[in-house]
Amino acid sequence: MAKGISSRADNYAQWYVDIVKKAGLADHSAVRGCMVIKPHGFAIWEKMQAQLDRMFKETGHVNAYFPLFIPKSFLSREAEHVEGFAKECAVVTHYRLKQNDDGTGLIVDPEAKLEEELIVRPTSETIIWNTYKDWIKSYRDLPLLVNQWANVVRWEMRTRLFLRTAEFLWQEGHTAHSSKQEAIEEALQMQEIYATFAEEYMAMPVIRGRKTTSERFAGAVDTYTIEAMMQDGKALQAGTSHFLGQNFAKAFDVKYLNEENREEYVWATSWGVSTRLVGGLIMTHSDDDGLVVPPKLAPTQVVIVPIPKPNPEIMEVAERIAAELKGKGISVKIDHDPKKRPGYKFAEYELQGIPVRIGIGKRDLEKGQIEIARRDTKEKTMVDLGQEANYISALLDTIQQDLFAKALAFQRARTNRADTWEDFTRLLDEGFVSAHWDGTSETEAQIKAKTKATIRCIPNDQEAEKGTCILSGAPSTGRVLFARAY
Amino acid sequence: MAKGISSRADNYAQWYVDIVKKAGLADHSAVRGCMVIKPHGFAIWEKMQAQLDRMFKETGHVNAYFPLFIPKSFLSREAEHVEGFAKECAVVTHYRLKQNDDGTGLIVDPEAKLEEELIVRPTSETIIWNTYKDWIKSYRDLPLLVNQWANVVRWEMRTRLFLRTAEFLWQEGHTAHSSKQEAIEEALQMQEIYATFAEEYMAMPVIRGRKTTSERFAGAVDTYTIEAMMQDGKALQAGTSHFLGQNFAKAFDVKYLNEENREEYVWATSWGVSTRLVGGLIMTHSDDDGLVVPPKLAPTQVVIVPIPKPNPEIMEVAERIAAELKGKGISVKIDHDPKKRPGYKFAEYELQGIPVRIGIGKRDLEKGQIEIARRDTKEKTMVDLGQEANYISALLDTIQQDLFAKALAFQRARTNRADTWEDFTRLLDEGFVSAHWDGTSETEAQIKAKTKATIRCIPNDQEAEKGTCILSGAPSTGRVLFARAY
Repeated sequence: MAKGISSRADNYAQWYVDIVKKAGLADHSAVRGCMVIKPHGFAIWEKMQAQLDRMFKETGHVNAYFPLFIPKSFLSREAEHVEGFAKECAVVTHYRLKQNDDGTGLIVDPEAKLEEELIVRPTSETIIWNTYKDWIKSYRDLPLLVNQWANVVRWEMRTRLFLRTAEFLWQEGHTAHSSKQEAIEEALQMQEIYATFAEEYMAMPVIRGRKTTSERFAGAVDTYTIEAMMQDGKALQAGTSHFLGQNFAKAFDVKYLNEENREEYVWATSWGVSTRLVGGLIMTHSDDDGLVVPPKLAPTQVVIVPIPKPNPEIMEVAERIAAELKGKGISVKIDHDPKKRPGYKFAEYELQGIPVRIGIGKRDLEKGQIEIARRDTKEKTMVDLGQEANYISALLDTIQQDLFAKALAFQRARTNRADTWEDFTRLLDEGFVSAHWDGTSETEAQIKAKTKATIRCIPNDQEAEKGTCILSGAPSTGRVLFARAY
Repeated sequence: MAKGISSRADNYAQWYVDIVKKAGLADHSAVRGCMVIKPHGFAIWEKMQAQLDRMFKETGHVNAYFPLFIPKSFLSREAEHVEGFAKECAVVTHYRLKQNDDGTGLIVDPEAKLEEELIVRPTSETIIWNTYKDWIKSYRDLPLLVNQWANVVRWEMRTRLFLRTAEFLWQEGHTAHSSKQEAIEEALQMQEIYATFAEEYMAMPVIRGRKTTSERFAGAVDTYTIEAMMQDGKALQAGTSHFLGQNFAKAFDVKYLNEENREEYVWATSWGVSTRLVGGLIMTHSDDDGLVVPPKLAPTQVVIVPIPKPNPEIMEVAERIAAELKGKGISVKIDHDPKKRPGYKFAEYELQGIPVRIGIGKRDLEKGQIEIARRDTKEKTMVDLGQEANYISALLDTIQQDLFAKALAFQRARTNRADTWEDFTRLLDEGFVSAHWDGTSETEAQIKAKTKATIRCIPNDQEAEKGTCILSGAPSTGRVLFARAY
């Protein structure tokens, strides 16, 4: 166990907080529920952003930016939407402070009260659809494929660093279409992009599925989700994509003239992933020694440590290797601090999750070798000088694949079928449970009340299978996925 | 004059708004003073961000993210700072809405009042220095070189798209140092980075200088600025970098142990540029036909238009040229819409400011030629097929340089020296005026009251020259730069 990190077995929740703090990823701030994303954590988020942004643009989306504030009246326009968000809104009521006349300090100036209160956006459907009303006139203006990278605020009462914070960073895509079919395809396409990103970049396997009515986004007709399994067997909703039907078009009166010159309401989607993904990344791969980051998202992929300390000969080799790796597009750092010992540095870089460590020692150099260590498995290999660039390039791919394979094996091992209530409750402690459900929100609510488990999704690859509901015994035509969730 | 765009000569302010709206850069939103940055405008901002971020990272800075909200009490800690920002703060007072009991709709829940009001950040010195208190213990933790990309809110009463909006996007660097000298050097380095970016990427020449006491950032010891000249001769403050002394360290009690194990207050800088730069870019280069964007910041650098419309032969050439240009890292778009005429397309791309247009016509192709047109000068050249990639690559460089040279010539032609009050007031209508000032805030305020001109800066390259103040006649040792400003 690394210094100051609880073990997963002893206290999983504390282990998570310890990793986040000790690896310099984030910290609590002076503002309740808001976090400070520290440079190391932000660098991981930047890698995620860059890749997601590329994938959005490759599929024809463009970025834009809409106001932080939403007039209170906008929120009320879509009935389910306001129901979902009104209870957790930060509300701006005034626009000026002043010094109190009695000299006791700064107060809100009562004369600077807003006529209509402004909500700090919890999500932007309302302000965006109010804008789309001006942008969309005819079928020629469609589809409109817009994304924004932004901060949003939801006044959550119980917060956890990255996983659930009052303010978080995210992207929200908001698209407008001329047909229902095209909008559904867009929502499914974005679900698939999220799944691909999770699996190929985060090395985090996910289950693709659809949410039940009660777990849907407030205002959506259908919510598509990707669900990942954390190392404690709990689920993390990692990204959602919503088919919004014509709900927001109707709420904001957004119509277009179709090719036959008839007015019709526009069809919509919205989709988002957030800094929550950083939490998911941490909880999928890290261990009791610290953070483990898949190479594709590691801000620094390789660190070079002179052993026992830098000397001109070692530094010359280190610089040459670093240049060679950079030439292959691999990010690398040389730690030439002469004051710290190799052992201290090794522990530090394990904590920070740098995928590959190169040790360059005098004696090994004499044999023409260097030591290369993997963060994920801790394996060390002696590699002949001159071979290191190809070796490391291949090793980074191997680590990326191995991390995914390991997480996938874990997810599969901890996903069980249950056909009796007893099995169901017992297996929920393990992880995901695939079970029959009668399709009613009432049963779903009862199961949640009894077990704290929710239906994570109706899997996209659900097989037709006759069965009886795990709680009510009523007939069912297919299994859904239950789990306790973050 | 392009359709719907006022001419600069007739109405400069309206010309600017017309360009911003017709070129699809931004629009007013339903929230007072807040703008919607449309995809085209955001794409330019993204190009700016990418380059600035690269320059920040090359000089050792890392990105992080701090909370949107600042507790009211934090703002009061630094006396000048609160004085500067209290009057334009969006204040969050509640964290929940509810349905009114009388059924009249959504109201702020009076039971969800915050104990301490939160300010939507107008700038983040206070929340960041409160955080730095935990991050900085010893000289080993310094320097701390952190930047954040964020939205900020200043409740401005008179707003203009991009130039002055209630919410805007920016980056704010906040650095901490162990010595005064190092902090001053950092602030000057960032001024120089901003100047380099403005001149080499935006093709916008700037005057580097220092602000007078009354124009300084609230809480700074010194503010370094870059000042650009717009086409109406007015100044635009394009970026500022502040040496904050120990003001924030003292306000938030941030001390470090130096190498002699003595506690000392930390030295600070902060520096920022914002979406205001997009406004500056527009006003520096655009003309009565629309936007002009320097190639280095153009989201699309080349557009290919088939003449009179696409056919297989033309499209084959177009595709080949596009592939060739992309191979050279040039962004290119083919407009193969058969419904619109070339003339319509030409006007549209002039409006959008795409630097280079290629026309591919059947007759020209027979002669083995294509037509290449520059957006900035409207010059057209026939180029032999096969030569186009090299020609365009060189042309983009030429356009970039010519735009800068033209803007520089304009700035120089409109910068005058004045030694009498009469000349001074007359020349202010032209542009910048270099004149003697007695160094007092009183005189500065009187000049502003009489002429609306402010001291933009004391230029970095100010020459020692004895003279008398343009207003008071008191002695002066060097000229400062006056202008009316945005």
